[in-house]
Amino acid sequence: MLNFIFHNPTKILFGAGQIAEIGKEIPKNAKVLITYGGGSVKNNGTLDEVKTALAEHTCFEFAGIEPNPSYETLMKAVAIVKAQQIDFLLAVGGGSVIDGTKFIAAAAKFTGESWDILAKHAPISEAIPLASVLTLPATGSEMNSNAVITRQSTHEKLYFGHPLVQPVFSVLDPTKTYSLPPRQVANGIVDTFVHVMEQYLTYPADAPLQDRFAEGILLTLIEEAAKVLQQPQDYAVRANLMWCGTMALNGLIGVGVPQDWATHMIGHEITALHGLDHGQTLAIILPSVLTVQQAEKREKLLQYAERVWHIQEGTEEHRIQKAIDKTRNFFEQVGVKTRLRDYGITQESIPKLIQQLKNHGFVALGEHQNIDLHLSQRILELSL
Amino acid sequence: MLNFIFHNPTKILFGAGQIAEIGKEIPKNAKVLITYGGGSVKNNGTLDEVKTALAEHTCFEFAGIEPNPSYETLMKAVAIVKAQQIDFLLAVGGGSVIDGTKFIAAAAKFTGESWDILAKHAPISEAIPLASVLTLPATGSEMNSNAVITRQSTHEKLYFGHPLVQPVFSVLDPTKTYSLPPRQVANGIVDTFVHVMEQYLTYPADAPLQDRFAEGILLTLIEEAAKVLQQPQDYAVRANLMWCGTMALNGLIGVGVPQDWATHMIGHEITALHGLDHGQTLAIILPSVLTVQQAEKREKLLQYAERVWHIQEGTEEHRIQKAIDKTRNFFEQVGVKTRLRDYGITQESIPKLIQQLKNHGFVALGEHQNIDLHLSQRILELSL
Repeated sequence: MLNFIFHNPTKILFGAGQIAEIGKEIPKNAKVLITYGGGSVKNNGTLDEVKTALAEHTCFEFAGIEPNPSYETLMKAVAIVKAQQIDFLLAVGGGSVIDGTKFIAAAAKFTGESWDILAKHAPISEAIPLASVLTLPATGSEMNSNAVITRQSTHEKLYFGHPLVQPVFSVLDPTKTYSLPPRQVANGIVDTFVHVMEQYLTYPADAPLQDRFAEGILLTLIEEAAKVLQQPQDYAVRANLMWCGTMALNGLIGVGVPQDWATHMIGHEITALHGLDHGQTLAIILPSVLTVQQAEKREKLLQYAERVWHIQEGTEEHRIQKAIDKTRNFFEQVGVKTRLRDYGITQESIPKLIQQLKNHGFVALGEHQNIDLHLSQRILELSL
Repeated sequence: MLNFIFHNPTKILFGAGQIAEIGKEIPKNAKVLITYGGGSVKNNGTLDEVKTALAEHTCFEFAGIEPNPSYETLMKAVAIVKAQQIDFLLAVGGGSVIDGTKFIAAAAKFTGESWDILAKHAPISEAIPLASVLTLPATGSEMNSNAVITRQSTHEKLYFGHPLVQPVFSVLDPTKTYSLPPRQVANGIVDTFVHVMEQYLTYPADAPLQDRFAEGILLTLIEEAAKVLQQPQDYAVRANLMWCGTMALNGLIGVGVPQDWATHMIGHEITALHGLDHGQTLAIILPSVLTVQQAEKREKLLQYAERVWHIQEGTEEHRIQKAIDKTRNFFEQVGVKTRLRDYGITQESIPKLIQQLKNHGFVALGEHQNIDLHLSQRILELSL
């Protein structure tokens, strides 16, 4: 096991009805900006519930944070935060709203060009405290300090992270996910699954407990995914998927182990250039990464085949191939297509995607940093 | 899944050499009281390492916190804290030292009779911040807000817990456990195992991820325990056992599920009356609790038999009995005896133990609160 630091101070309020508790979690004299996306939290009553819980607080609203939250939109919120002297941000939505709110929190206190927080990882020394009410389990953003932001004008999708933008608290009410469209449910399952794979499917590092925890999330996801599309109002299923999403990316399963993240980095470029959903890009890229890296990932692929997919027969090559096939089939079964062609993307996009990776310095990806631009090209070609 | 709140802000610094980092984690102007137990942390150099890391801090020392830390001893430390105006406590040791330091932290700021914190769960409104350097993985105290304290004069062993006594940070350096006596290693493994069982082996509550996490700890413990007594200087084994101990009782596996704790409550009375090690009492009592509660715990016992002990053949009764036998054998194999008679305790102690349970109000134990004094007596008789 590698040395590590683990520190996750986010308070989780989990379960039906927990939104009613948030008034106690935010300082009474705080001026709160409630941030959200489109109309769904308005239409399904979640926003009203939040406002009722904050009846004694001074609240403002900022709507319109889009999927793949854009720098352009978020800077409008930053202007409001400064003008109104907001001192607490409450994100109501999924990972995009929470990620976007993390950027607002940092940018509102940043002196200089805010884009540098993303483009140059400019140091952050202050941020507005934030919290979240999660309505779409997927990204884990509700219990970590990371965010991914897109600049629409330049087709760039970049990452930043800082302990100051870790949510103070997050409410996870499974009933708030009942009304999600199947596409978002499916994307969330794929996203959670791939978050686990990025931290688990590398090489053995004497960390059997982290492996068991990761496999536990994958097994639970597979079991619950089979139920959720049939039984969208099943509380237990929604609760388990929600908790899987949080546990997959709150730092826990990644402590002391090597991590990959090549699938995410390549996927981000596809979203930036073609606008695909984040989960869609992961479903496309992961099987190809596992295929080209099967020598490097051999031991873990065999363990994954056995413990997650119960594959015990055949040669090692056969078992590995079967595990990769099962992974692809799982994504397809939950409803996410796994080929670039399924989204109308052809060979001719590949040079542009490679150029983007190059522009962003992603020339040595994966746990061995052996995925150079040549290998990224091979991964994209295999994904056609 | 039941509604829950999860909040665990302790920062974990894990790995060889991490003690050197603690100077940065404690306010520079803090007057620090370093608390420890017997001479082992002195003899093996850990205390010197801590003092070197805190060379720029003003430090005091308090030695002599015993296994099953005593109210009498701890109140001496409270007097020092008050006299020297200590504002940070650093526990260097195992669960007893950390638990004891939690009590010192609360009692030093408590107005009134300090024993009431334990005997009457008197409300705490302030505590001195504390941290730990863990040298004996077992209790999980390094990442939770609970403590168990013994009053020697009255043979009472009582519990308290409060967020204010949660360690700010804890250092987990596996090399610090190399020199532990086998008896303490064995006790720590049993303690960790039973912590998991108290939260896992109840009844199904639609919480498959918590189940998988719990089973992951049990499986890892079983694998690593087989190695540790043979390879006491194996870093990976020590690291994994240490991380299992923390994960078993930091709140994670217990979120949203029913919990038992009957084994602990009955075990505490045995320690209070006869001075047995905590781990020894758990090894004695758990198999009997599982036996008398096998109807109530049937589904989880079958799941435990299959997933942890790979028992798939035979009738349900046979599989359950085999799983209980395997549990007992595991404790015996790591070197902890599982019968009261192994420690010279006979039938005639049972009425006294039952009287103690009655005195402390433990008349309805277990996840169904169906373990009354009559059933506790049956558990003790089965444990002879």
